[in-house]
Amino acid sequence: MTARILDGARVAREIRAELTPQVAAFAARGGRPPGLGIVLIGEDPASQIYVRSKARAGGEVGFWIDLHVLPASTSLADVLALVTTLNRSDRHDGILVQSPLPQAMGEGATRQVFDTIDPAKDVDGFSAESVGRLVQNRPGLRSCTPAGIMELLDRCGIDPAGRHAVIIGRSDIVGKPMALMLLHRHATVTICHSRTPDLADTCARADLLVAAIGRAGFVTRGFVKPGATVVDVGMNRLSDETEVRRFFGDGSPRIDERARKGSVLIGDVHPEVAEVAGALTPVPGGVGPLTVAMLMKNTLAAAEARAGRGT
Amino acid sequence: MTARILDGARVAREIRAELTPQVAAFAARGGRPPGLGIVLIGEDPASQIYVRSKARAGGEVGFWIDLHVLPASTSLADVLALVTTLNRSDRHDGILVQSPLPQAMGEGATRQVFDTIDPAKDVDGFSAESVGRLVQNRPGLRSCTPAGIMELLDRCGIDPAGRHAVIIGRSDIVGKPMALMLLHRHATVTICHSRTPDLADTCARADLLVAAIGRAGFVTRGFVKPGATVVDVGMNRLSDETEVRRFFGDGSPRIDERARKGSVLIGDVHPEVAEVAGALTPVPGGVGPLTVAMLMKNTLAAAEARAGRGT
Repeated sequence: MTARILDGARVAREIRAELTPQVAAFAARGGRPPGLGIVLIGEDPASQIYVRSKARAGGEVGFWIDLHVLPASTSLADVLALVTTLNRSDRHDGILVQSPLPQAMGEGATRQVFDTIDPAKDVDGFSAESVGRLVQNRPGLRSCTPAGIMELLDRCGIDPAGRHAVIIGRSDIVGKPMALMLLHRHATVTICHSRTPDLADTCARADLLVAAIGRAGFVTRGFVKPGATVVDVGMNRLSDETEVRRFFGDGSPRIDERARKGSVLIGDVHPEVAEVAGALTPVPGGVGPLTVAMLMKNTLAAAEARAGRGT
Repeated sequence: MTARILDGARVAREIRAELTPQVAAFAARGGRPPGLGIVLIGEDPASQIYVRSKARAGGEVGFWIDLHVLPASTSLADVLALVTTLNRSDRHDGILVQSPLPQAMGEGATRQVFDTIDPAKDVDGFSAESVGRLVQNRPGLRSCTPAGIMELLDRCGIDPAGRHAVIIGRSDIVGKPMALMLLHRHATVTICHSRTPDLADTCARADLLVAAIGRAGFVTRGFVKPGATVVDVGMNRLSDETEVRRFFGDGSPRIDERARKGSVLIGDVHPEVAEVAGALTPVPGGVGPLTVAMLMKNTLAAAEARAGRGT
């Protein structure tokens, strides 16, 4: 193990500790705490975990959390009506609808729900308006995962300026906004994806490699230039013991963990990368906690922007 | 000279020829032609040429062109008031304010004017809403220069899928939207800029190289992989005969052209690149005419979208 471990959980605690007095000051000034409306539809276990963790973190920094848990059978019209109510509410500064929505809601439902959220309350940073402001490098609500990664790099003293950053994955919520944020911080940026030939070679040129593809242990030693910083956005679950042994080795404590819990988490980066990378985010405890911390930061920013506009 | 010349002027004529009957059909259906409001403030010679060329092209495809030429002394408030009037007008489907605005108008004037244009009429594709929709790969009004380059590549049978595209320049209106459009067409995309080390080496890995930096003849032979497609977005003016000879060689007809006209145009790509590139856009007659053609296409699209919405 040579890589420096970039402790996202610690940085996330730092951010939340900084937010707490700011939230208290907001509440003292405005006579109410920032309000975050969270909507969860259906019973997806991962979504339940995420929502619980966001609600808890929001409560801890001092937000008013308004959690709406709706059955999977809820109609799209009812979800849109709820979002419209939250848009109009003076007490809600942020609105978060946990995705994915139930499949039964239909193809375009997610986009339609996100498009209905008032961009000023879009604390996930998913609205076209917010995304456009990111491209234009103007203030706005940013997608939480890449924004959290920028905070992590900053607070760990890793400056992307003049470095070559390679991102694997081109999603709307991670790959593309990550590329733009790194570009604005003066990195030379390459975006790779499933159609990239010579993927390992391209990645091996990176000073900073961000893996956001959702494939367990996909990024192996050959993808990584010795000394590079590697950011692992993946959250994949392994439940097969043979797989756990194959990725983590026969002596790993993860084998026991799997036996106890039924599964273990693994990122998109193979554990062997710790032997070549200069710095690495762990899974769990790397990018995940930062995403939640940035959601809190966005909610306070939305509340302050709304208060500044006199609403 | 080995490179195939990608004749942007011809493709632009094709696009405009296709638009003309569509514009006539729109006018026949709606009882009025699509309307384009063009606002020019001040006497910048390049802006006057651009505006004249846009107004002429719009007239030729059958648009109603409403040209407002204002003195450089116009106040920002008056420009914003004019834009607001055009926003409210039923006859104006597109609004274009030629940049740059006079310096005297102040630092944030350009952004304030662009932000005032109704995104549904923003035929330059500069609004945060339009830019966000591009990132999300959803229908919308696209920045004209990169959209024109995509049309050119398509109509010349050059498919970016699976190729490595390198873009030099990270502007809001060319570099960044170009990167996103190529990414959505499954290229692996690298964005370079003034802070990129080893720029020539990085460019020399490109199957498709887009130069958008505004420096005469900056991209020399060493930047180009033999056989690569090179797109030259630069429009730089040379008025010094020694410079013309240095770039184009002693036997070039550009020397006479400079003597007659006082200057000649040169792109960001050095003429010697024609000896190594597989395909190359000329300057003039490459990207420039496509930008105007795409503006026409955006205006018709905006008119159809507004008509479809019943306005």
